[in-house]
Amino acid sequence: MTVREILAAHPLSNPLDRDLLLRCIEDCIECAATCTSDADANLAEPDVQEMIRCVRLCLDCADVCEATGRILIRQTEPDLGVLRAEIEACAVACRACAEECEKHASHHEHCRICVEVCRRCEQSCRDLLATIRG
Amino acid sequence: MTVREILAAHPLSNPLDRDLLLRCIEDCIECAATCTSDADANLAEPDVQEMIRCVRLCLDCADVCEATGRILIRQTEPDLGVLRAEIEACAVACRACAEECEKHASHHEHCRICVEVCRRCEQSCRDLLATIRG
Amino acid sequence: MTVREILAAHPLSNPLDRDLLLRCIEDCIECAATCTSDADANLAEPDVQEMIRCVRLCLDCADVCEATGRILIRQTEPDLGVLRAEIEACAVACRACAEECEKHASHHEHCRICVEVCRRCEQSCRDLLATIRG
Amino acid sequence: MTVREILAAHPLSNPLDRDLLLRCIEDCIECAATCTSDADANLAEPDVQEMIRCVRLCLDCADVCEATGRILIRQTEPDLGVLRAEIEACAVACRACAEECEKHASHHEHCRICVEVCRRCEQSCRDLLATIRG
Repeated sequence: MTVREILAAHPLSNPLDRDLLLRCIEDCIECAATCTSDADANLAEPDVQEMIRCVRLCLDCADVCEATGRILIRQTEPDLGVLRAEIEACAVACRACAEECEKHASHHEHCRICVEVCRRCEQSCRDLLATIRG
Repeated sequence: MTVREILAAHPLSNPLDRDLLLRCIEDCIECAATCTSDADANLAEPDVQEMIRCVRLCLDCADVCEATGRILIRQTEPDLGVLRAEIEACAVACRACAEECEKHASHHEHCRICVEVCRRCEQSCRDLLATIRG
Repeated sequence: MTVREILAAHPLSNPLDRDLLLRCIEDCIECAATCTSDADANLAEPDVQEMIRCVRLCLDCADVCEATGRILIRQTEPDLGVLRAEIEACAVACRACAEECEKHASHHEHCRICVEVCRRCEQSCRDLLATIRG
Repeated sequence: MTVREILAAHPLSNPLDRDLLLRCIEDCIECAATCTSDADANLAEPDVQEMIRCVRLCLDCADVCEATGRILIRQTEPDLGVLRAEIEACAVACRACAEECEKHASHHEHCRICVEVCRRCEQSCRDLLATIRG
């Protein structure tokens, strides 16, 4: 993604580990798009009645991932407490969404993909968080 | 706001305290708009160089408040862990923004207003959080 | 809403008619929250299968209204072409959402409320647009 | 991006040209992140006073691209009028942002990158639009 290129051209960089930060930004962006798509795919399924919790958690996860992506992209004058709390919220939303999608992964391929992307994003958040808390 | 009216017409309600929830939703919406405006007002000030941290924290706070408002509005199949982590992140973002705006409140009326709205939203988040953690 | 107060404290103002602008900002914010709630209320209805198009158009409308609200709140260095196209997109999204919600207004009170709020927001967009195009 | 993979697993597809749609979604997502980064990079520049219009148009463009990306990702029960107006607004916002960033591209590498990404996204929007209007 171009986000790596433009962050390299930024006059500043926030104090977070560079590689983990870039990975987390990309995973948040990817996860927001994936959850938006999975919520919508669930609405199109004949068993939509069974998918309501999945729709809801996908919408929540998309909202949190989008906000987290934006906040992590910003390098200027970060507040570490805000970063920490937001990344934590993102990890929690990704896990809840992955756990629900998991239940439908065997019969809905879009949920299987969503599990994968949410788990990866949760892990990126946890990895980044570990370097902030230290 | 109509949000009270439409939530009253919702077939379900999430398990949170109703009054505190409604207040928190309204404060998140208000705070997102106010922070978006304060970030922009700062850009128009002759001392913009001094306002950079304020712009940044207002943008972060607007993003978190908007996501939190959406998540709290949803009543269907909520995940309490997601709500808790998101409301916590919102309280942290509001506090950081208020503390920075405070420094400029005496010479920028828009920052003074922003402090007030952020502090109110932080308090609403804390009050709501207290009922979830119990 | 505090948005009126903080816009009054802004060092600049964009060239749009003040009263119409303030009304449009408030209606966009209100409509974003209302559509987010209506989408979610639809998911909780026993006839959710009949409500899928309504959910989708509410989600679209919430996204457009939120972006439009943010763009209109900003007073610094506006681009009139961007404002015009965004307000137009918002009016179109509000109308499409209102027309779909209308079909369910007699049996779902939340849809009836959503129709009202979307129609009001569409009108505010059209009124504001009329002053830009002139 | 995984968005291609999950859209392939969606039970439905909207009536837009598949390749152009996928390209437009990816470009909107990329452009939202890039503009968020460029707005922030501008805030960190010693000549921030000269960059205010650029910051503002980047913020507008990020907001429109994010909403457009979400709306295009949804395949279920689309409204062509909403898609058309939103893609048009996105093209306009990308062009305005690119034109402003262009002025700073020779001395700010982050603006040069942003021009490129905005122009690509504008083109993708125009290409997709051409197939809807036909």
